[in-house]
Amino acid sequence: MSAYHPLSAEEAIQLARSIPGRFPEHAELECREIGDGNLNLVFHVTAKNTADSIIIKQAVPYAKVVGESWPLSLDRARIERLALETEHKICPELVPEVYGYSDELAYTVMEDLSEYTIMRRGLIEGQAYPKFAEHIGEFLARTLFYTSDLGMNQQEKKVLAGQFVNPDLCKITEDLIFEDPYRKSDNNNYSEAIEDEAEVLRSDTELHFEVTLLRHKFLTQAQALLHGDLHTGSIFVKPDSTKVIDPEFAFFGPMGFDIGAVIGNLLLNYASQIGWSSDEQTRAAREARLIEMARGVWTHFESGFRLLWNEGLQDEMSRTAGYQDYYISQILKDTAGFAGCKMIRRIVGLSHVADIDTIPGDKGREAAQRKALAIGKSLVRHHRSIQSIDDIVTLVEQASQGNEVSI
Amino acid sequence: MSAYHPLSAEEAIQLARSIPGRFPEHAELECREIGDGNLNLVFHVTAKNTADSIIIKQAVPYAKVVGESWPLSLDRARIERLALETEHKICPELVPEVYGYSDELAYTVMEDLSEYTIMRRGLIEGQAYPKFAEHIGEFLARTLFYTSDLGMNQQEKKVLAGQFVNPDLCKITEDLIFEDPYRKSDNNNYSEAIEDEAEVLRSDTELHFEVTLLRHKFLTQAQALLHGDLHTGSIFVKPDSTKVIDPEFAFFGPMGFDIGAVIGNLLLNYASQIGWSSDEQTRAAREARLIEMARGVWTHFESGFRLLWNEGLQDEMSRTAGYQDYYISQILKDTAGFAGCKMIRRIVGLSHVADIDTIPGDKGREAAQRKALAIGKSLVRHHRSIQSIDDIVTLVEQASQGNEVSI
Repeated sequence: MSAYHPLSAEEAIQLARSIPGRFPEHAELECREIGDGNLNLVFHVTAKNTADSIIIKQAVPYAKVVGESWPLSLDRARIERLALETEHKICPELVPEVYGYSDELAYTVMEDLSEYTIMRRGLIEGQAYPKFAEHIGEFLARTLFYTSDLGMNQQEKKVLAGQFVNPDLCKITEDLIFEDPYRKSDNNNYSEAIEDEAEVLRSDTELHFEVTLLRHKFLTQAQALLHGDLHTGSIFVKPDSTKVIDPEFAFFGPMGFDIGAVIGNLLLNYASQIGWSSDEQTRAAREARLIEMARGVWTHFESGFRLLWNEGLQDEMSRTAGYQDYYISQILKDTAGFAGCKMIRRIVGLSHVADIDTIPGDKGREAAQRKALAIGKSLVRHHRSIQSIDDIVTLVEQASQGNEVSI
Repeated sequence: MSAYHPLSAEEAIQLARSIPGRFPEHAELECREIGDGNLNLVFHVTAKNTADSIIIKQAVPYAKVVGESWPLSLDRARIERLALETEHKICPELVPEVYGYSDELAYTVMEDLSEYTIMRRGLIEGQAYPKFAEHIGEFLARTLFYTSDLGMNQQEKKVLAGQFVNPDLCKITEDLIFEDPYRKSDNNNYSEAIEDEAEVLRSDTELHFEVTLLRHKFLTQAQALLHGDLHTGSIFVKPDSTKVIDPEFAFFGPMGFDIGAVIGNLLLNYASQIGWSSDEQTRAAREARLIEMARGVWTHFESGFRLLWNEGLQDEMSRTAGYQDYYISQILKDTAGFAGCKMIRRIVGLSHVADIDTIPGDKGREAAQRKALAIGKSLVRHHRSIQSIDDIVTLVEQASQGNEVSI
């Protein structure tokens, strides 16, 4: 019989107390469950008279999504914890520290980041994060390089990949991102107003072809350890600091999937600007800033990745002239394609983004949805011919103009 | 403490007797160790007065190659056994049956194939195997399709792939096929007569680029369960039957690697013909037959794979128009590239083929070596632009003519 049971607040406090060095010996501890109740319990344990605190995150054996309950393996807690540990070793400043865990009880005790804001919320409020592109570019460059055949021992990589076999959570991505938006599915979720767009997504076989290529990469290409769900809701920010959380979708996949997730989510916020009632000037400034953030994510990733390659390459054959350029050009193409897939699914698929869904006016929301779809489709459709980040920006701007609706 | 120890002949007999239904109850059993002593012990257990017999194959914890001893994980016995079981379920006629095993003692009890000939030996003797292309094409089509995301449940595939993490044996391939031939290495092994060829292999950076692309696919693309070492020494033949053995290199990799192994080894025998003292007519007939065998391996694979795809596809998105053609065209390109890599390494790398090494005359052997290298390099160099099996045949014939040396 498994010892698994959902922790009580009292147990969470005992657990917190057992972690060495986290709290003064006789501190009075308080515990609040702050999870959204969908996938995990999240206990916030604080000391009464000091600033000491920790988070205990415990997986529950189901996911509640739009009222439905999906069974989900508790093994995802092990995978998330192992991903946090692996990423923290590579990027200590950018990933919360793990203080303790139990695979059996499916919990992880970790650094409290309560003073951070969820990036998606900050972007919706119109905040600027001038350090974000640099930070996330570094996270991407370092985690992807050091878990690939370029930056780690190739035999150890195979063993590590074996520890990240993650069928349950990959299945969610395979269905919700790479399949449901392109067919009739009970999982899809969009308003009647954009039924015409949904119909085009279902019938456009040229688009399906490109999506199927990207899906095949997701299914087969074990290039590096991915976060696997790197949207702006998985990133905590402060003006001077960035932390990447929630890697429960981690597995060995194509690098462009993580980079595309970040850029796709920035572009979803970009597409949402048309729907918010800001003045023209503010809107133009925010749009320009978001484009530059997206560009910056790529350029910081690329420069960091090239530096690591030039200084830390483990693989002799990869020193071959021209190979680095070729390799990075492939990542860019994948990045564009995956960014596009992620934008499309957030409009017609099961799970949306608040950037667009919380736009108060129906017309503004619809305009943002159409704009996001236009950008997403363009990125997917053209991803294999993209040569530079400027090409991506051009596609985004052209798709935006061609489909911009005055509101 | 591990219970592992090398089995004695007496233990092998006891073991054989314990397998239900294999021998009559009071049969007198005899045992002969028939392994080549490099990687495995192979016990042939036979009953004295009947035709009943079995094979017990036991891994030893090292590999003896050219006098050196490499430590090798005993886990390869588990991988080989699991691969045999997986392949046998998919192709019962084409793979020996497993009767029993112990992962701890690293042995597998299996069907005896003593009445078969090793295909490489048969080819060297000039035998024709008119059923071979059809049989191996079926093996390739079925094993590759049914262990890919096309033909098996995609979540079960991930779990199965986790059971085939095979770092030790993949390392041998990564070094001996994709690296050593292109640099100075103590592992390399060739005569001074072809030092000029070896030097070209080391300095040709355009060739290195193509090899590095293929190496990257080998390292990262978990497309299907591969045999992993499908040369003509891993295939047993009779006029009417073919059996694939020795899948200890099995792992999830790019499909073209297995198909390329078969075709590359047929082409090595093709290249060897120039060195054997047969008359012109015999030689021309054998060469033509080998080219047709290589062509037939591909065409039987392709037609079988398309049939399985059309009838048994598990993946909805893969029904997209044009995707099947695209997918198969990619396999063909990979097949050509991997075939080329395998030819090159058998000439200058550690491990050679008897087809060429046993040619008695130095000049004939050298001519065959140069011809094999010319074909191998051409296939690697042009693999990404190959569109059909005819393109491969054309490249082979052109490379052969351009480098043919009269002897």
